Amino acid sequence: MQTLAYGTLEQSATLSPVRFTREPVRAGEVEIDILFCGVCHSDLHQARDDWGNTVFPCIPGHEIVGTVSRVGEGVSKFAEGETVGVDCMVNSCQTCEACQRGEEQYCSGPKSCTLTYNGPKKPDGTNTYGGYATSIIVREEFVLKIPDAISPAEAAPILCAGVTTYSPMKHWNLKQGQSLGVAGIGGLGHMAVQIGKALGAGVTALTTSPDKAGLARELGADTVIVMTDEGALEDGAQSLDMLIDTIPYAHDISPYLKLMKPGGVIALVGNFIEMPAFVPADLVFHRLTLAGSLIGGIAHTAEVLELCAEHGIRPQIELIDIDGLGKAWARMESEDVRFRHVIDMSSLKSRREELGRDAEEIAPPTRGEVTGRR
Amino acid sequence: MQTLAYGTLEQSATLSPVRFTREPVRAGEVEIDILFCGVCHSDLHQARDDWGNTVFPCIPGHEIVGTVSRVGEGVSKFAEGETVGVDCMVNSCQTCEACQRGEEQYCSGPKSCTLTYNGPKKPDGTNTYGGYATSIIVREEFVLKIPDAISPAEAAPILCAGVTTYSPMKHWNLKQGQSLGVAGIGGLGHMAVQIGKALGAGVTALTTSPDKAGLARELGADTVIVMTDEGALEDGAQSLDMLIDTIPYAHDISPYLKLMKPGGVIALVGNFIEMPAFVPADLVFHRLTLAGSLIGGIAHTAEVLELCAEHGIRPQIELIDIDGLGKAWARMESEDVRFRHVIDMSSLKSRREELGRDAEEIAPPTRGEVTGRR
Repeated sequence: MQTLAYGTLEQSATLSPVRFTREPVRAGEVEIDILFCGVCHSDLHQARDDWGNTVFPCIPGHEIVGTVSRVGEGVSKFAEGETVGVDCMVNSCQTCEACQRGEEQYCSGPKSCTLTYNGPKKPDGTNTYGGYATSIIVREEFVLKIPDAISPAEAAPILCAGVTTYSPMKHWNLKQGQSLGVAGIGGLGHMAVQIGKALGAGVTALTTSPDKAGLARELGADTVIVMTDEGALEDGAQSLDMLIDTIPYAHDISPYLKLMKPGGVIALVGNFIEMPAFVPADLVFHRLTLAGSLIGGIAHTAEVLELCAEHGIRPQIELIDIDGLGKAWARMESEDVRFRHVIDMSSLKSRREELGRDAEEIAPPTRGEVTGRR
Repeated sequence: MQTLAYGTLEQSATLSPVRFTREPVRAGEVEIDILFCGVCHSDLHQARDDWGNTVFPCIPGHEIVGTVSRVGEGVSKFAEGETVGVDCMVNSCQTCEACQRGEEQYCSGPKSCTLTYNGPKKPDGTNTYGGYATSIIVREEFVLKIPDAISPAEAAPILCAGVTTYSPMKHWNLKQGQSLGVAGIGGLGHMAVQIGKALGAGVTALTTSPDKAGLARELGADTVIVMTDEGALEDGAQSLDMLIDTIPYAHDISPYLKLMKPGGVIALVGNFIEMPAFVPADLVFHRLTLAGSLIGGIAHTAEVLELCAEHGIRPQIELIDIDGLGKAWARMESEDVRFRHVIDMSSLKSRREELGRDAEEIAPPTRGEVTGRR
């Protein structure tokens, strides 16, 4: 199957059309006609090789919603025409302890999980291509039903931004009535505020942008602390049971440590780059946990989709055309995003012929073996 | 009661004789004639005001073993002549959630716990004096029975170095057959290796000093990694379920992160000073926990004393006279300590008259209210 996509053959923040020919759908696989794909900060980090691990060509996109266009032999959970989603993973060993407990993102198999783009988490030289494309083929275990209550475009960001913040809340057992902090009110943070509220927590939004205070309150935050407000920081000292830190770049953790109750947990979900030096006394004196958390397992993704459907939780999205990507990335970079950009893939499909003509032909992505269903 | 002690009236690494007059023992309190006091790296940090929180005068010492010389009204658990110990705390609110679950070190009362020296954990201007002294008076709830199987001098370091490493193993639920790393083979580390083995873990000792490898093996370590040995670090990648990091100064955490299994826990117990900048990717990708842990509650201290008695776990100690302190601190500072220094307090008591003459008279320590027993 011919696929048209936007990607880059080298370290770059600018994508251009590429095309490749996929092997047809195999047993256990689902072919998806992509309708929408969310734009995640990771997409830019990966294309620009900020983490030093990018396998090129790079076709980003891991918040994919589309329509099932074909199913392989033995596929039982999905049928043609259904609306489905794909999150950050498309494969894993399915047999290790982590996979068995539904946390494929920590798969301890030989390749760990295979990411939707950029190949296996334990790199082996192979590559996968993401959702900035007309179609994708994914094994059934990694395809998600999109609840009817959520529109396909709004469902897309739940698949990464939603589950990435939901998963640590579940793992560290955020309880009703506890207090949750959310640092950074962007793509992940604005979902975390709503999800925390739905789970019954009191939510404090923490932002460096005073003009995001109103938005945070609209999303349901009970308290907003602007991080430059010393008085508010003092008032908030030792007030949080858990903090989901969504800030996607190096930042001083010290003021956040002061906000944590004894025994509190900070989960980093956005910053893989640098943790600047800090004084660890609060970690010791109050037995704080500073941890990280990576996306979420398929089970948690299915759960958070249902939670969003039930509680009317929606990402604030701005639909863009495929050629609006450059501007969207630049705005994300300058923190000028109050919502999640979602690419309307009809803007790519409608220009298939024109864009396809100039598109660079690249090798098809790798697809792991299709193992039996669990 | 007249007490002679070694302390300092100002920021200094040199102690000299001081004396003060204690109020007599009150209801619920136990008066202890001090036989031995262990020397902890914290003692030096506190006297030198390395943490910027020292209340002067400073009389260090929180690994105290002695003989009960008097009991106050209503004391039921201890009788004159018994061998008892005092660890890092001498008071707490006894009513908050942390106190109720036996973790007085995280007391959320108005002063938190009161430390054996340097006063309440939440400073209120009052002060307490530690075990570099002829005697101490402590409320019954904070006095520990010393098992007969352990000699008084050897029991002393268990009261801080022992419980500080035992408590995180219990809190994060180190299981039989799991793999425990111990970073830093000094006063705390050499206890952690033995305690980890007694709890059924496979123990890897991590040291920067190649000449400590033999000692670590004698203590029971199954594996020793010298941190300059790149090959050994590679072999040990993702091998540890838990790491007790006892290193008492700023150090790069990066090589230790690489040693942790997914989901692994690092507990900092020695470094309150500075965590240098590091790349937090491993925290996120493998959901690692970087946490701290402070000493241990009275219940855990009682448990670890019994564990040491049962399993023949002993600190390696070197007895010193009170005037050997300066040299002992200097050796601790230069990392030239293979054991725990323990002060034989008879060296102070036998020179009571001579030293008392020149000793500076200081105000007595504060003692909190004696509340009812639980």
